[in-house]
Amino acid sequence: MKSIDWKGSSLLLLDQRKLPKEKKYIEHKNLEEVISSIQNMVVRGAPAIAISGIFGFVLYLKSLSKKPEYREVLEKLNLLLQSRPTAVNLKIAIQEYLNVFHETYWNQVQLERILQESENFALSLFENDVHTNQKISNYGADLFGKARKINLVTYCNTGAIATAGIGTALGIIRELHSRNFEVHVYACETRPYHQGSRLTTWELMEEGINVQLICDNMVGWLMYTQKIDAVLVGADRITRNGDTANKIGTYSLSLIAKAHNVPFYVAASESSFDLSLPTGKEIQIEMRDPREITQNFFLKDELGEPIYPPGLLAPVGVKVLNPAFDVTPHENITGIITEKGVISPVEEKNILYLFKGK
Amino acid sequence: MKSIDWKGSSLLLLDQRKLPKEKKYIEHKNLEEVISSIQNMVVRGAPAIAISGIFGFVLYLKSLSKKPEYREVLEKLNLLLQSRPTAVNLKIAIQEYLNVFHETYWNQVQLERILQESENFALSLFENDVHTNQKISNYGADLFGKARKINLVTYCNTGAIATAGIGTALGIIRELHSRNFEVHVYACETRPYHQGSRLTTWELMEEGINVQLICDNMVGWLMYTQKIDAVLVGADRITRNGDTANKIGTYSLSLIAKAHNVPFYVAASESSFDLSLPTGKEIQIEMRDPREITQNFFLKDELGEPIYPPGLLAPVGVKVLNPAFDVTPHENITGIITEKGVISPVEEKNILYLFKGK
Repeated sequence: MKSIDWKGSSLLLLDQRKLPKEKKYIEHKNLEEVISSIQNMVVRGAPAIAISGIFGFVLYLKSLSKKPEYREVLEKLNLLLQSRPTAVNLKIAIQEYLNVFHETYWNQVQLERILQESENFALSLFENDVHTNQKISNYGADLFGKARKINLVTYCNTGAIATAGIGTALGIIRELHSRNFEVHVYACETRPYHQGSRLTTWELMEEGINVQLICDNMVGWLMYTQKIDAVLVGADRITRNGDTANKIGTYSLSLIAKAHNVPFYVAASESSFDLSLPTGKEIQIEMRDPREITQNFFLKDELGEPIYPPGLLAPVGVKVLNPAFDVTPHENITGIITEKGVISPVEEKNILYLFKGK
Repeated sequence: MKSIDWKGSSLLLLDQRKLPKEKKYIEHKNLEEVISSIQNMVVRGAPAIAISGIFGFVLYLKSLSKKPEYREVLEKLNLLLQSRPTAVNLKIAIQEYLNVFHETYWNQVQLERILQESENFALSLFENDVHTNQKISNYGADLFGKARKINLVTYCNTGAIATAGIGTALGIIRELHSRNFEVHVYACETRPYHQGSRLTTWELMEEGINVQLICDNMVGWLMYTQKIDAVLVGADRITRNGDTANKIGTYSLSLIAKAHNVPFYVAASESSFDLSLPTGKEIQIEMRDPREITQNFFLKDELGEPIYPPGLLAPVGVKVLNPAFDVTPHENITGIITEKGVISPVEEKNILYLFKGK
């Protein structure tokens, strides 16, 4: 199941809002359409957003007849950067892309060459993510030793449709399954967007992995009544000290795991680390449309109307808080599983040592 | 807003599944209809279930032309008792009612007199709950001292529609408001049945009390980013040591409150205590229909079909766990607020002292 499909002159994105009911791709012919799809969560997951965004920029370059003004390029990249502010992968991809761009832009006259280098960069971003996923999955699976029965809790969706490869946290689960672990996954539904109930259960069922859906508020009960071996989640941005922004609810989950002495692992690639931020307090948290909670307004019927009419799930005019992410402090995280190895204990010096060798 | 309206020969129950969209009453003419409405959550909330159930039994007696066999009476009461197994108020109401019933049944020949005593018992149950609510609300509000700005978190619905009076935890909030506290309530939506988003927000908005809706998974973020003065919840069954069964998610909430040193109060009447059970481990937890999670199947459209078609919120055939309640251990509870005073610390000896004077 490809969620990102580059066609050379257009970008196909699997419309994740329609899953699991429908597998429908949306064709994007320009950057604005890609930005809109990022904002409206056609595509989601920090790595998938970064890759789609860069392909979107390639579409912008393809629409030009001559080299753009540098100012205009920065404006477009800034628009893209602002599309979803919490995940860092897109920011880091844009920074790396700018290096490529600068080199071609100031040295080459021809637009065509810039375009070629840009497209190559986007394709390599995609390929790297595939390899990164597999390495994370291997390191993660290694933590659990020999094949046995294992009970895992996961949150949101960190699978093949959130990345270019087999996923981060879900990649580890896939790898455990392929190593003959008898895996039982409890997938939290992940309100208000239901990434867990719509996407994670669906991915795992397609793979034949044993999954059971619970509401987010049931995790305490679950850990109180059953032995859980570990919690595996992804990340949207990890700061220098290991504080981790991830889907809203992750922090609550970490507290519940801690109270039950259940190991809590974050699976993320180096591109999810923002070493420019000392702690999680500096991370900007995106606040989203209240109607995601009161109307499930992202799920539309054939006429494009929200499936819950206003007033059914909550009174019309009710005030709502809808943060899309929260920050889990590093002390609640047992380890961060990256493509370069596992960081544990989660401390600044261990993070810098792994990525900078110092 | 009356949720239970006794008409002498029928029982009107406000259909809480339709709130806040519609205020519709369902007329019940016999016990079976009342049992079905308890099971299907037309009426909910431990005190409201108990009162409705006893009125349902009065309807049964009214349908008779002669005194029933004693065996048949016990069968009917047992059916009623099994309608929802976790809350204890109904069990205690039935036990108390049996005392009244025995006295009339074995001493009086006439059915009419039994009926009169039974109806009086049901009416007194209703009236007592009104007074009990007010006393709980006063004791609870006293805990917060002088009027000031106060931030509270509440869960599920413990208000006027869950009881006969002004509610338990919501009664305290109403009382604080009437004592000129500047109350800001964060109402958790309470998946999967949305009692928080549908009922609690609605009740508080009707009273002009400042309320903001959040998803259950946002409480950690909320307590991390804002000062919360207390959590106020209700109870479905409290054991002798203070372990408290309440709506699924309450236990997770208690862990999150504890991690942030936020006081966690349970508001409940004596009739929610089951002193026959030593600890919460003995409480039977009701497991409900998976479709409450995957289809929100309680919310029906005009044709009676679930508003979410199968496959939209979760894949068809997904395995689901749907416990309706969980147990919060007494050590997570700062105090239990009853009509006889506040139990704190929550320990067996303090509970027995309050209710038995020993």
